[in-house]
Amino acid sequence: MRRGLFESLKDYSDSDFYPFHMPGHKRNPDSGPLSDFYQMDITEIDGFDNLHQPETIIKEAQEHAARLYGAQETYFLVNGSTAGILSAVSAVAGRGDRLIIARNCHKAVYHAAFLNHLRLHYVYPEILADYGIAGQVKAETLDAKIREILSEDEGQSPNDTEAIAGIVITSPTYDGVCSDIEALAKVAHGYGIPLIVDQAHGAHFGMHPAYPENAVRQGADLVIHSVHKTLPAPTQTALIHRNGNLTDGEYLRKYLRIYQSSSPSYLLMAGIDEGVRLAEEEGFKRLGNLLEWRDEFLKKIKGCRHFQVCPYTEPGKLVIFVRDAVITGRLLYDLLREKYHLQMEMASGNYVVAILTMMERKEGLERLGDALIDIDKALFLKADQSEIKGQKMPEYFSLKPEKKTELWNAYLSPYQEIELEEAQGETAAEFINLYPPGIPILVPGEAVSSEAIHIIREYLHSGYEVQGICENKIKVLK
Amino acid sequence: MRRGLFESLKDYSDSDFYPFHMPGHKRNPDSGPLSDFYQMDITEIDGFDNLHQPETIIKEAQEHAARLYGAQETYFLVNGSTAGILSAVSAVAGRGDRLIIARNCHKAVYHAAFLNHLRLHYVYPEILADYGIAGQVKAETLDAKIREILSEDEGQSPNDTEAIAGIVITSPTYDGVCSDIEALAKVAHGYGIPLIVDQAHGAHFGMHPAYPENAVRQGADLVIHSVHKTLPAPTQTALIHRNGNLTDGEYLRKYLRIYQSSSPSYLLMAGIDEGVRLAEEEGFKRLGNLLEWRDEFLKKIKGCRHFQVCPYTEPGKLVIFVRDAVITGRLLYDLLREKYHLQMEMASGNYVVAILTMMERKEGLERLGDALIDIDKALFLKADQSEIKGQKMPEYFSLKPEKKTELWNAYLSPYQEIELEEAQGETAAEFINLYPPGIPILVPGEAVSSEAIHIIREYLHSGYEVQGICENKIKVLK
Repeated sequence: MRRGLFESLKDYSDSDFYPFHMPGHKRNPDSGPLSDFYQMDITEIDGFDNLHQPETIIKEAQEHAARLYGAQETYFLVNGSTAGILSAVSAVAGRGDRLIIARNCHKAVYHAAFLNHLRLHYVYPEILADYGIAGQVKAETLDAKIREILSEDEGQSPNDTEAIAGIVITSPTYDGVCSDIEALAKVAHGYGIPLIVDQAHGAHFGMHPAYPENAVRQGADLVIHSVHKTLPAPTQTALIHRNGNLTDGEYLRKYLRIYQSSSPSYLLMAGIDEGVRLAEEEGFKRLGNLLEWRDEFLKKIKGCRHFQVCPYTEPGKLVIFVRDAVITGRLLYDLLREKYHLQMEMASGNYVVAILTMMERKEGLERLGDALIDIDKALFLKADQSEIKGQKMPEYFSLKPEKKTELWNAYLSPYQEIELEEAQGETAAEFINLYPPGIPILVPGEAVSSEAIHIIREYLHSGYEVQGICENKIKVLK
Repeated sequence: MRRGLFESLKDYSDSDFYPFHMPGHKRNPDSGPLSDFYQMDITEIDGFDNLHQPETIIKEAQEHAARLYGAQETYFLVNGSTAGILSAVSAVAGRGDRLIIARNCHKAVYHAAFLNHLRLHYVYPEILADYGIAGQVKAETLDAKIREILSEDEGQSPNDTEAIAGIVITSPTYDGVCSDIEALAKVAHGYGIPLIVDQAHGAHFGMHPAYPENAVRQGADLVIHSVHKTLPAPTQTALIHRNGNLTDGEYLRKYLRIYQSSSPSYLLMAGIDEGVRLAEEEGFKRLGNLLEWRDEFLKKIKGCRHFQVCPYTEPGKLVIFVRDAVITGRLLYDLLREKYHLQMEMASGNYVVAILTMMERKEGLERLGDALIDIDKALFLKADQSEIKGQKMPEYFSLKPEKKTELWNAYLSPYQEIELEEAQGETAAEFINLYPPGIPILVPGEAVSSEAIHIIREYLHSGYEVQGICENKIKVLK
């Protein structure tokens, strides 16, 4: 039986060793309100291995995670999925290469493209009719995009064309909708291009037949899992997995060493190790229980006139839509929070999102069901359909802005701040992200269209956090 | 009185709020051995602000830290000083620019140069006679280097010359030796060049007159402090401060958003906040106590024949040299660890390093003093001076390898692995770092000289961790 990182930390903490090393709290009980937590917070000392050159206990813990997910190699991430995404993209792409990404990728993918001076090409997800949320990226969409790029290159000399270095798809989406990774991998591999799957929200996949298979086993080349999102693991922790031979493990490790602290937290690493272990030992049972409670919840709110749960997400998400009523998703979110002390993950125009994990308690779903029934009774039916229409937010992720200049060029160029309303025809100098989920509406270098202004205005008006807009001003290139 | 991050987390933890949000442990007490710690581990939810666009409690906490250190702006880092160094260098330097760095900079500085395709120019620290450790980087050394670069550019067209984008100095060094930052800043600013100080080991500076002033108040433009190293704060936490107008705060913030997780740990942030608060409230008193205990320790071991503490370090370090005895620093380190349960920070050829912080306990220094007296009695005097000389490790940081190609070019080029002994005349394809402290002996693109081989061999022979050498093989360019 392997001794985990936690057990090793505990042993050291329980010993009479006196620390003349970092961290500075010295495990001194006088170190303030977090001193209990500091009892097991150490740095690389003898016997504790090194994340950046693992040989013993960290290596074994990573290999254990690799076996669970079916990867050739797995690495612990203490700088979140962000570090995994930056490293994955940097490892596959050379300067100036092309990268095909789903438009609804997380901003970290755009940041990776910026750092590596990549030229971005977008594939767009379907839109789920009746819900207005992002659906799958279809394999045929990806195939068509690759063929489009290759056909543009025809007749050009090879020096004038750049390789398509990789493809990045987010699955599941923030809302819990999964793409068909097997089909996407088949397309990508047909052209010899590696597929990177940002599966930040799917670390629990492949552990129970009622949930989707994980992207590692579905044939993706690099997969990133935020263990903190759906496993019992601390915030800011994640995994990256590598399979196949379309990517270079050494490049990947080089970038992981660059983008992550040279003093990684052992508590975060122990948290990953314990989270993976608990998922392996109890995940099947717990995910089964969750399914049962979720079904009870769905039955319970079936009679609600105003609430409908989107059926297209994986079971780990509850996307609850408001139907035929005069409240927005934001108001529902606030009601649940203020009156019922139920904190949702996010709110959008006409829905709220709840994340359900294997650590859910039955009580939580019961309280949520009761609250919804309670609120449902207090809502009037809306007669005027035009008002209902106004509830739905515009689909920012389907905006197809014109690219005026490349991201890496635009993001560091001189800019001026002008009123949003006056920005039509200008070029964005800053990311305009909706947060959550942290997906761009506009990317630096893209034209600010009247449609984009409309979308940003609608989100601002409805009280969303739109990163990159400050006091109704937008940064545009000079 | 400002409510700190910790208090806000505690309030939420004590409430009856049920979390339908990340993290996945859901604060469930069944989440394994770290579940106590998870009680206060949350993500960005209402009322908890956002590290990447701070407006309320994180903003206030950062402003509080800025006041303590005397900075215009201070930012919390959850990806260690690494994130601060990457961001600082990226913020000052454009692609292809020149960067002057002290050769004994941490590998993160080299990584930043790699990411930005910078051309590195080195200034070398003095060597402390009798000790063989790195001393100060002198202001006149820096001035001479800048003049050398500028004079090479004379007669060239401006298009053929690149700006000197910045200067990076490490102060204190890993061993605790400080450079004269005021003098260095004066030289740098005379040429209009920003000075970045990696003060990772000096987060306690400026809090007590017997310790050095901090680099922020000494005129540096950007300063990085690892709060986890010398304050009571968790591993992987740090601060970056900005002053003056030679650097661009917006560029800095852009890169901080890129290089750090978009799901930063609130426990790490609360740990920074509490560490800074404790340092402000109790730092003066505690650093005073430490000084007293340190003096008692020095008096106690004064009679030791074989141990001598280097007098040139700041009081937060104890660099204990072995004199006239047949043991190496490594053996002393092992003895202290195995027999006395005193864990040092590191060992070198003829010395060990202990880190002392404001959270030291008197007991620790007493135990260390007693142990040294005990060991001292058990050591024989060495008569043969040649053997003593052999104890001293070569000064790897004073090696001046020839640059064959730029780092960014070499680090991703095709390479082969060959025996170290056969590598003379080849070009390094990988960083060869001594860890700790994580400072390069060779940088990719540098010629492997017989001197370099000798130095690497000596460190390997003496049991050091030399990163980048595997089974006596070195990676060289094809």
